[in-house]
Amino acid sequence: MMKCSVIKVPARSPNDMSALQRYIDESLINPKEVVAVLGKTEGNGCVNDFTRGFAVLALKNLFAPYKEGSAEPVSFVMSGGTEGILSPHFSVITRSESDSIRSKQELSSLAIGVARTPDFMPEELGRLAQVDQVAEAVLRAMEGAGINDAADVHFVQIKCPLLTAEQVQEAVLRDASTVTEDTYKSMGYSRGASALGAAVALGEIERDRLQDMDICHSWELFSHVASTSAGSELAYCEVIVFGNSAYAEGPYFIDHDVMKDAIDAGALKRILQKYPDAEMVQVLAKAEADPTGNIRGKRHTMLDDSDINHTRHARAVVGGVLASVCGDPMIYVSGGAEHQGPAGGGPVAVVFRRNEHK
Amino acid sequence: MMKCSVIKVPARSPNDMSALQRYIDESLINPKEVVAVLGKTEGNGCVNDFTRGFAVLALKNLFAPYKEGSAEPVSFVMSGGTEGILSPHFSVITRSESDSIRSKQELSSLAIGVARTPDFMPEELGRLAQVDQVAEAVLRAMEGAGINDAADVHFVQIKCPLLTAEQVQEAVLRDASTVTEDTYKSMGYSRGASALGAAVALGEIERDRLQDMDICHSWELFSHVASTSAGSELAYCEVIVFGNSAYAEGPYFIDHDVMKDAIDAGALKRILQKYPDAEMVQVLAKAEADPTGNIRGKRHTMLDDSDINHTRHARAVVGGVLASVCGDPMIYVSGGAEHQGPAGGGPVAVVFRRNEHK
Amino acid sequence: MMKCSVIKVPARSPNDMSALQRYIDESLINPKEVVAVLGKTEGNGCVNDFTRGFAVLALKNLFAPYKEGSAEPVSFVMSGGTEGILSPHFSVITRSESDSIRSKQELSSLAIGVARTPDFMPEELGRLAQVDQVAEAVLRAMEGAGINDAADVHFVQIKCPLLTAEQVQEAVLRDASTVTEDTYKSMGYSRGASALGAAVALGEIERDRLQDMDICHSWELFSHVASTSAGSELAYCEVIVFGNSAYAEGPYFIDHDVMKDAIDAGALKRILQKYPDAEMVQVLAKAEADPTGNIRGKRHTMLDDSDINHTRHARAVVGGVLASVCGDPMIYVSGGAEHQGPAGGGPVAVVFRRNEHK
Amino acid sequence: MMKCSVIKVPARSPNDMSALQRYIDESLINPKEVVAVLGKTEGNGCVNDFTRGFAVLALKNLFAPYKEGSAEPVSFVMSGGTEGILSPHFSVITRSESDSIRSKQELSSLAIGVARTPDFMPEELGRLAQVDQVAEAVLRAMEGAGINDAADVHFVQIKCPLLTAEQVQEAVLRDASTVTEDTYKSMGYSRGASALGAAVALGEIERDRLQDMDICHSWELFSHVASTSAGSELAYCEVIVFGNSAYAEGPYFIDHDVMKDAIDAGALKRILQKYPDAEMVQVLAKAEADPTGNIRGKRHTMLDDSDINHTRHARAVVGGVLASVCGDPMIYVSGGAEHQGPAGGGPVAVVFRRNEHK
Repeated sequence: MMKCSVIKVPARSPNDMSALQRYIDESLINPKEVVAVLGKTEGNGCVNDFTRGFAVLALKNLFAPYKEGSAEPVSFVMSGGTEGILSPHFSVITRSESDSIRSKQELSSLAIGVARTPDFMPEELGRLAQVDQVAEAVLRAMEGAGINDAADVHFVQIKCPLLTAEQVQEAVLRDASTVTEDTYKSMGYSRGASALGAAVALGEIERDRLQDMDICHSWELFSHVASTSAGSELAYCEVIVFGNSAYAEGPYFIDHDVMKDAIDAGALKRILQKYPDAEMVQVLAKAEADPTGNIRGKRHTMLDDSDINHTRHARAVVGGVLASVCGDPMIYVSGGAEHQGPAGGGPVAVVFRRNEHK
Repeated sequence: MMKCSVIKVPARSPNDMSALQRYIDESLINPKEVVAVLGKTEGNGCVNDFTRGFAVLALKNLFAPYKEGSAEPVSFVMSGGTEGILSPHFSVITRSESDSIRSKQELSSLAIGVARTPDFMPEELGRLAQVDQVAEAVLRAMEGAGINDAADVHFVQIKCPLLTAEQVQEAVLRDASTVTEDTYKSMGYSRGASALGAAVALGEIERDRLQDMDICHSWELFSHVASTSAGSELAYCEVIVFGNSAYAEGPYFIDHDVMKDAIDAGALKRILQKYPDAEMVQVLAKAEADPTGNIRGKRHTMLDDSDINHTRHARAVVGGVLASVCGDPMIYVSGGAEHQGPAGGGPVAVVFRRNEHK
Repeated sequence: MMKCSVIKVPARSPNDMSALQRYIDESLINPKEVVAVLGKTEGNGCVNDFTRGFAVLALKNLFAPYKEGSAEPVSFVMSGGTEGILSPHFSVITRSESDSIRSKQELSSLAIGVARTPDFMPEELGRLAQVDQVAEAVLRAMEGAGINDAADVHFVQIKCPLLTAEQVQEAVLRDASTVTEDTYKSMGYSRGASALGAAVALGEIERDRLQDMDICHSWELFSHVASTSAGSELAYCEVIVFGNSAYAEGPYFIDHDVMKDAIDAGALKRILQKYPDAEMVQVLAKAEADPTGNIRGKRHTMLDDSDINHTRHARAVVGGVLASVCGDPMIYVSGGAEHQGPAGGGPVAVVFRRNEHK
Repeated sequence: MMKCSVIKVPARSPNDMSALQRYIDESLINPKEVVAVLGKTEGNGCVNDFTRGFAVLALKNLFAPYKEGSAEPVSFVMSGGTEGILSPHFSVITRSESDSIRSKQELSSLAIGVARTPDFMPEELGRLAQVDQVAEAVLRAMEGAGINDAADVHFVQIKCPLLTAEQVQEAVLRDASTVTEDTYKSMGYSRGASALGAAVALGEIERDRLQDMDICHSWELFSHVASTSAGSELAYCEVIVFGNSAYAEGPYFIDHDVMKDAIDAGALKRILQKYPDAEMVQVLAKAEADPTGNIRGKRHTMLDDSDINHTRHARAVVGGVLASVCGDPMIYVSGGAEHQGPAGGGPVAVVFRRNEHK
């Protein structure tokens, strides 16, 4: 049986490992069991956000002595941008295996699988090549999590690359054409292609009907559980599948819903009301500025703002709305929800911990 | 008897008068009865936000032919910053007098009074001189609204000046010392002094105990109903008092509550639940980044952000939270709540329209 | 004979007309002779820069009484963005006609012509439709200026529209496809197409070889004298041709050179050294971030900056470099030099005033 | 005898050590001899600029194996902000000792000394306590560099701390009052106090006459050679003295001048013209927005800009101006020149390498 947990740790700066180190020293976290760290870091969440890489470097330094000789590296997925009330933190994800044989338990528990794609060429980003590699990686991650049914998958976190001006230039020199020459815009294409990859893997959309030009255009195609963030600190996609599995034990489990727009507080309320006796551990959600330029029929100004990128606005809003429901600003809200939930909305998932002695 | 109304009009840009002109042409708004326009314009809401002045110039051009020969000018109060889902618009406030004698009606109705202070010298801003002038203006505005009891005042909107680099320099040349040399920071001092002025007028705090150094320091001193915004387009304070008066008739009325922090959705919910049969016309609220650097015990990053000023973050959050409750992004949320509600929180008021035939 | 002049007037805010009014009151500027005003306003110079429209509204209010009944409206060309040391101001351009017959004078003088295109549909922007309309307007403006030879044209200022999110959406609803859905990026396409229009009119490039896809891609195609800025305050292109003509008299004349990159101080030095006895009146230049991501073989970070748009960086640099040469920060430096000078560089022109009694 | 060198190494991101590693592998840099690294990193150069700390962490990781057992740590001084054409890079500073006895050489050579202060309490920052500790450290660094005469000191680089919102809050809880509660503003106070410390040590100003309130107010007090940058990654001041010493040998030497304002290209020209046969290795300079709000009598908008902090504008300008003179964008221009050169101006130093075989 597999046993997975999600533990939230605050950070006072991208490289602040003091709380995490304390959790390890106090045996609240076993570093050998850590398979992934999902972080919210306080950068702009856009192209030149180096807080993500900074956190990863500090985390690597921290885990290096514990992971020596380990075959399985830790997946570090940093999402930049803690606009508004969002509070920088790390969600540490552990997984351990035990010899215990599956009892006829009623409830399945949180199961986590991790996989990664090969490195991408600049010209592959934001195109079907990325969709296909991600779909394949999602299936591998599901297998690793012991999840057979796509309905048991409640969150697929994907960290994906972006194009920098240097890479665009390099491709141009090779006569290769990238999907865009705009580095900020490349983040959207990469997130979009990754989300469609998850949707293909989970049977939410049909691969056969998909074309390059659907990516970041055909908004009616989307995944209900994909959450993708782009960053310059990697050249491949890192996939973490969160779901419930009968092959997993322990008090943690996960569920999800879909926000129909950035102020749809109802989605999170519905999830919380389903499990009145469980403790909410972490909220995972995506945010985006409605691409129509309107929300509930009123014009918003996020897409025309040349001072603050729209993903920053959207994170501030969705972070505030979700925190007003769950009461906790230390949640994972990531920006840019291309093909992740309906246009203008996005998936929201909650990791719970069963109150075992009730 | 007085009769007041609040009518919301969308704007596609700071100078877009097309919707307002249409309302006038269709007799939905009588321009001769307009006493004030409260606007949300899509600038940065900080020092160099010229969208406020742009809107005022366009509004003046529009109203000039209708107001010719009128003794009473229209008060234009523009609040910059429509971060997140906030939708640019104007709240047009009208007032008319009738000969009707007060019947023994049960309900008092929305009453509005307007007043302004003299121009301030740069060195008076953010100090007791400003507090006193504002307090005096608030009392005059209450009188104009026919409100005797401070408990009937539910929102006091004050537009106040700020210091520009030029003004600071000018004062220096006269050997006069301004409260700060930082133009952005001067906005906070001006908002704080204005709010304390309202609190003094309404008996919420005692003038005798107040000193210059309390302004923007003694956060326990605050008004529950003041809402102040600073802008470079005026040198005096413009005060608009919103309340209910027995000397006013008509379907409009107002009530208020106080948000204890930026994600306190409960405050608006409580107001809305009190009047299930009335139509919500407009929400008026203030937003600020908690000055402790924490919200619900978790660190936020708004005060350390050198790319986006904290008032912008705060408006995005509070706008999103309130819109998620009332379902309408076209609401008035203004940033910088110094001495307006408790530290990190702020007042929220709702203008309702009675459903008369129910 | 025509007589043209360029007079610089400072502005303390986008709508500050006090200095301009004083010049008029003191008869230094005859408002009836004003054909164009070129302004630098202190906005972000990007999509949501309303300082341009604010200045235009204030200028229209100012000129309205003087221009009543005039057939020829004033052309207002505002360029947003006074990053770094650039100082907000207006360049007021006048033109008067006299009955004087051309004497066998040795020197030709500053001649100015103005023309405008029809309004564009959103889907025409950044495409050959815009190129052709602009080319036609440039030829009309040359004719108006009495300039037959393209070699006598030293600066072609074009104000062009951009796409807002609303317009993109409107086009989508009509099944029309715009050149980009990114509003900030649309500014580049509109500037690029306008510049190529000027290049076609002046014989710098051949129209026959031009295709839609060359716009903002084939950087080897450019005009040596075009200067284009995009703004949301107009739907057509406004063209002002500056040159020298034998049919013009008076002390003003103009010359130009080309900066090969943003730090090429030599271009302005060469112009100034040609006319040691003349008084420099105004410098007009374009700035852009080198699209290769390098300058003099060293990487720059302007294109990867998601906090500050690259046009803002570029204006700060070029403004500083040119002011360090000419000693005056009140110069016209406009951002985004697509097809205006070589990639990474841009045209620079100087208006001089002959010292007549030497 | 001491032998010092300065070698510039490009960086493609704050943590990019590839070029530096190559220099080490090719024996162009001996890591054991490295005493300091001065870097320009591509952050905002303000409070929440984590690119500085990111670079330091990567540099520490790189140098750790080479410096094992070494008593003397490397001083890492990162200055954030590569606005405009500035190119991210590291200036690697080495020092080695040899037994060679001083010959009767004519020329003294580059000598470098390093020292650091103790950690500061939040309430000591920006006050005389900081001035005194820095002055003492500068004297120690001079001694280490073998420089007796202040006239031989040409650049004093000081990295100093800033106040974060957390530290301000912590001090408040202890009833200690910090010089400001504004984190961005604290950077100016810390830079100012550090510069005055250098000025005291070098005899440029008298300590006896100095009071707390002179810091960031009495602009006529300044050092001609101090260059200070503030960052959140340290709690003490790090001082590096650059000068020429008769006890140093080798081809490197340094000289300096003072820019009177941000567009004073003449200062750098004068230095370069003094040494026509030497190779320019590196330019070190400070930049600031003129605190009067004017430059050469014309208004600038840097101090009123709430979107871009004025230090960012200033670096873009001064970087561009200096690069236009020396032809190299890979230079060290740091923002915020409080008490470093005259108000609005700043020191500029050049490290040269003698062409030995001429």
